[in-house]
Amino acid sequence: MRHKLLILSPDRDKYRALINEARLVDLEFADQPAPDVDIVLGEPKPAITVLDSLPALSWLQSIWAGVEPFLDPAARRDYVLTNVRDVFGGLISEYVIGYLLVHERKIFQRFEAQKNKIWEDSDTGTLRGKTIGLLGVGSIGAEIAETAKFFGMTVRGYTMGSETSKHVDRYFHPLESDGSPSVQQRAVALQSFASGLDYLVNILPNTVDTRRIINAELLDALPAHALFINVGRGQAVDESALIEALNQNKIAGAVLDVFEQEPLSKEHPFWTTPNLLMTFHTAGPSFAEDIAKIFIENYRLFVKGKPLKYRVDFERGY
Amino acid sequence: MRHKLLILSPDRDKYRALINEARLVDLEFADQPAPDVDIVLGEPKPAITVLDSLPALSWLQSIWAGVEPFLDPAARRDYVLTNVRDVFGGLISEYVIGYLLVHERKIFQRFEAQKNKIWEDSDTGTLRGKTIGLLGVGSIGAEIAETAKFFGMTVRGYTMGSETSKHVDRYFHPLESDGSPSVQQRAVALQSFASGLDYLVNILPNTVDTRRIINAELLDALPAHALFINVGRGQAVDESALIEALNQNKIAGAVLDVFEQEPLSKEHPFWTTPNLLMTFHTAGPSFAEDIAKIFIENYRLFVKGKPLKYRVDFERGY
Repeated sequence: MRHKLLILSPDRDKYRALINEARLVDLEFADQPAPDVDIVLGEPKPAITVLDSLPALSWLQSIWAGVEPFLDPAARRDYVLTNVRDVFGGLISEYVIGYLLVHERKIFQRFEAQKNKIWEDSDTGTLRGKTIGLLGVGSIGAEIAETAKFFGMTVRGYTMGSETSKHVDRYFHPLESDGSPSVQQRAVALQSFASGLDYLVNILPNTVDTRRIINAELLDALPAHALFINVGRGQAVDESALIEALNQNKIAGAVLDVFEQEPLSKEHPFWTTPNLLMTFHTAGPSFAEDIAKIFIENYRLFVKGKPLKYRVDFERGY
Repeated sequence: MRHKLLILSPDRDKYRALINEARLVDLEFADQPAPDVDIVLGEPKPAITVLDSLPALSWLQSIWAGVEPFLDPAARRDYVLTNVRDVFGGLISEYVIGYLLVHERKIFQRFEAQKNKIWEDSDTGTLRGKTIGLLGVGSIGAEIAETAKFFGMTVRGYTMGSETSKHVDRYFHPLESDGSPSVQQRAVALQSFASGLDYLVNILPNTVDTRRIINAELLDALPAHALFINVGRGQAVDESALIEALNQNKIAGAVLDVFEQEPLSKEHPFWTTPNLLMTFHTAGPSFAEDIAKIFIENYRLFVKGKPLKYRVDFERGY
């Protein structure tokens, strides 16, 4: 059986070249949406707009980890959706460690001093001995945990129940004694998870359980010297509560890679909130080489009728 | 036998408290230089000025790694000099990785964009796959090498001959085929060491062999996208050559923690050289807890007449 692949990405030519190198059997490229396209490799936004014009669609490989557009209950679900995992962990670990070091090492302060010709040799901080809390410990969180341990940190993890990373020193779950999740238990678990943290990092996907999980209550539970980093999804943050926490110095700072609305509107208060750094959804870039590798591996499984890697559960949302 | 310790550091009270906790036998504190002081724990600068007023001096534990003042041939050498090692590796690794990430992740550029309300999502770089060259692979270099490998880098090391770190992928030495060092071989070794590097990090101590080792020739051998970091000693750099390389964009940038003269004079061109970041000798801070631990361990060896750890060879200079 022949398969027809539609690629929806500004890097289309790069993907074609990489896929051609793998000499996959029975695979042709489509230049545009067509009735015989059964496979899509693409970014969520352009892909969702063509879903309804691909009657033969059987498998869609997302180029990104985040696949919210496909989860809309009004959208079709009669195909296998796979995303990319495991490739972002290293990149996002670099990002997190980079901004923790910017904070500890006073990198901006020293540069300001340099501009004013001031010999700014005030004490530096260190990652060693600090405590980092990870909201979400999937493949990305596990790599951040491993990197944090490498630098001598203590690692806490908050998950629904899974405890897959051995680099997490202590887990917190929103579970009753019978193992069922509850709203009360969630508040209790988040309070003890947040208490005494030096750094809080959100890596949670956007689901009904994670919306605005970083709220005034959680921010209040953090020490005043804590730094918050969001590399998960903007929807996980109560933006007003975060702005208030920063304006009132309830926490030391925030580094945000993701936002409820992207790109952020020019009128958004985040642009001018004190001690807030923004990085415009660049923390976990998709490198075509990595994504092509996943696509090629999955295609080989697909033609054999085997289960694909990184399949997304439409109900669970990840 | 009773011993009398003089502490020369702004953190004197902290050191006293830490040493008291260890309940060392036969140890008293001196408040000022005195004929019966036989041990000094101190920073090089204040310590060198009192050397001649301590006739009973038997052992001097430096609080810093760099001990140049004591190596002056005109200064006395009739005592055991020990410095601190192994404690800076982690801290300096943090510093190096921090500034590499500032560079790769465009941390300053994104902040400038934020000030102008620009959604700056240009591609980010990564440490993965990059090549770092370490000038000097002692205990600090070895820890930087290990950290670089953790982040997926290729590591080159330049040393006089030692190959002690297993995290270095390839070593370079200034040796003739008979194993003797030569000026010609040094130039050849440095050229091939520098060729194709993404990052060059100097960790060499200040000795006759390392003075101005980072000269125009070495800087010319680096690719134009390379970043230079100096956490060794300022004397290792030909400052004029570095300023010229930066002004002419022969390299992408430099991060300097150390300088020929410290603090740097207000007139020094470094303050305004493009793509130059300065950090005012803060890369490897001496934490009193770490230093006190070394002193206590060495004191226990000292009273038993055993060889001390981290002894400095006055001739070799480290």
